[in-house]
Amino acid sequence: MKIALLGHGTVGRGVDGIIRSNVPQVEVSRILELPDRLSDPRMTSDFSDILNDPSIELVVECMGGLEPAHEYIRASLAAGKHVVTSNKAVVAAFFSEFAELAAQNDVAFLIEASVGGGIPWIASIDKVRRIDDIRSFQGIMNGTTNYIIDSMRREELDFHVALGRAQELGYAERDPSADIDGIDVANKTIISACVAFDVDCVRDLPVTGIRTLTKADLDLFASRGLTVKLFGRGRSQDDRYAVAVEPVAIPVMSLEASVPSNFNLVSLEGFTVGPLKFYGQGAGSLPTGNAIVQDVIDVTCGRRQHYDFSRGLVYDPTLLTSDYVVRSSAAPVSNEAWAPGVWVYRRLTPPQARKMFEEILEKDASAFMAALPQEG
Amino acid sequence: MKIALLGHGTVGRGVDGIIRSNVPQVEVSRILELPDRLSDPRMTSDFSDILNDPSIELVVECMGGLEPAHEYIRASLAAGKHVVTSNKAVVAAFFSEFAELAAQNDVAFLIEASVGGGIPWIASIDKVRRIDDIRSFQGIMNGTTNYIIDSMRREELDFHVALGRAQELGYAERDPSADIDGIDVANKTIISACVAFDVDCVRDLPVTGIRTLTKADLDLFASRGLTVKLFGRGRSQDDRYAVAVEPVAIPVMSLEASVPSNFNLVSLEGFTVGPLKFYGQGAGSLPTGNAIVQDVIDVTCGRRQHYDFSRGLVYDPTLLTSDYVVRSSAAPVSNEAWAPGVWVYRRLTPPQARKMFEEILEKDASAFMAALPQEG
Repeated sequence: MKIALLGHGTVGRGVDGIIRSNVPQVEVSRILELPDRLSDPRMTSDFSDILNDPSIELVVECMGGLEPAHEYIRASLAAGKHVVTSNKAVVAAFFSEFAELAAQNDVAFLIEASVGGGIPWIASIDKVRRIDDIRSFQGIMNGTTNYIIDSMRREELDFHVALGRAQELGYAERDPSADIDGIDVANKTIISACVAFDVDCVRDLPVTGIRTLTKADLDLFASRGLTVKLFGRGRSQDDRYAVAVEPVAIPVMSLEASVPSNFNLVSLEGFTVGPLKFYGQGAGSLPTGNAIVQDVIDVTCGRRQHYDFSRGLVYDPTLLTSDYVVRSSAAPVSNEAWAPGVWVYRRLTPPQARKMFEEILEKDASAFMAALPQEG
Repeated sequence: MKIALLGHGTVGRGVDGIIRSNVPQVEVSRILELPDRLSDPRMTSDFSDILNDPSIELVVECMGGLEPAHEYIRASLAAGKHVVTSNKAVVAAFFSEFAELAAQNDVAFLIEASVGGGIPWIASIDKVRRIDDIRSFQGIMNGTTNYIIDSMRREELDFHVALGRAQELGYAERDPSADIDGIDVANKTIISACVAFDVDCVRDLPVTGIRTLTKADLDLFASRGLTVKLFGRGRSQDDRYAVAVEPVAIPVMSLEASVPSNFNLVSLEGFTVGPLKFYGQGAGSLPTGNAIVQDVIDVTCGRRQHYDFSRGLVYDPTLLTSDYVVRSSAAPVSNEAWAPGVWVYRRLTPPQARKMFEEILEKDASAFMAALPQEG
């Protein structure tokens, strides 16, 4: 099968290399690149060279960003080409539109690489759903923030030193807000919820990051046998679902707490299979390239996963109700102190907690909030 | 598709229930049971009723044991029926024979449920191998021994109290030797190596269990930041491979150390995808039933995984060389004491360590041995 790559950055080069070395039945015949970077005879800066080439059956989009990725994916699907993408932002924004176009044109739209890098997460959700409904999912979906928290905890670093190291290692961008403010995790949570719950997930979910986490916060949690991780999570019950992105306090003796460095761990709970957890590299040229190539091979084997989001689930954030702790001098006094300057607020939904926290942040930009583990 | 179940114990009932509730495209039309247990009109005690019924396209073997399971699987494959099995003993003993018969008759022989219960382990190895060679695998493959060690560690129980509880909960058999002596893990290790390395794995691998592990041993490891888990593992390099089953000391702050209760965690390392780890219920009616039903659905979707073990890999246990510690009054004095009564032996292969340990056990049946983590 002949395919085209849109983009030849870290991920695109990984895909190209893996296919050349290990997948003889697939050929990367064209590559879309910027006009000043056409270093390979397969490269073009004109997308129509790819769109109008009937020999190209599949387009891999790994440019990132919303436009023109959105338009190129739309056009490829409409032209009857399969699309495989690692671009979580564009999938989170336009999943239902892409899914509908793919179904109309009977082509595949596969997105394994958009969540969890090399971890077979989306394919596992798809497989579990052949038998089970999925009750809930949660996970460490952003390697950069896990690296920061893990370095703060194991090496006793301050947040800004750990962030600087993540930037030096290439895990974090110069502007790290997509990572540390939870935006990246929000995109991955939306995509996971769409697939797990078969619903066109809300976009305006509550999102809290770890920008204000301090070493002292981690020490306080540690004194209670807990640590903190940034989780994307979703839950479904009957005809309702909820999603949220926020720091969550978890027992130190849990798999999630043990996830080192920039690794990811994503979990789901199915009715018959019980809990399943998947761990691996959530980013990087070869792991993400691997996930894309697995999707490409699936297409050559005939896989046509059609998502239709036909379940009319209602968004109901009460499903994720839990207790929260806030460390801030500006936090409203609650009946319950957790530690000096740290208050507990019982039974809030994630949007209620987020609203309260935004009001606190206006007075105290250094405040930190985390959900406590649900009891029982 | 019409299928037959051989056996209607815990796993068979799980399969029957999951298919009835969730898989309308499959019908369990016959069930093989003992003559005094024919409680359902689909049941027969005569295997030829199933073998000679051309409407039955697939046979699920979940009787356990070597015979007659071996003969029934052989006959089913030879008759052109697909076979799905959860029986690790019979797969470990006869994998290459079954694989050859399946290929000759162009039918599927699928074994997901034989290792790791509901964890998609075998399918994940198969998928990784479409792109990558697998360098190594390892894992907690036996829930009973993990439950025993975890209870000893978290609840400060003695080995025999923890074992008794595992028996009360139905995790361990009345004769627990298949679990605590590592025989169950050995079968799963053989199967994993066959699939991961594409080799007809040796059957006489070195196997050491946890029968002699004490609370004091765990306390000693804990004082070094370690704990112990029973691992099956395999490694391949160039044209060689090695496998072993033995207790391994691991850092307390690792995913493996955090695995609770009777859960399993299995890991592999591929060249492009890096490390992947999979966690879930390694046993039980619904998780194991789920794995079987996933294999059945794969067959209805056209999956024909043919294993041919064509790589002429040489068994070379030096690939798993590591340092070992032995706690025994009868252990040969080494140059290096790890603690009073505990000696370190450097750079042994697993068979060398096993041979030494067997000689020690003849003088001191209470001795305990574990591999130390490999450095670097």
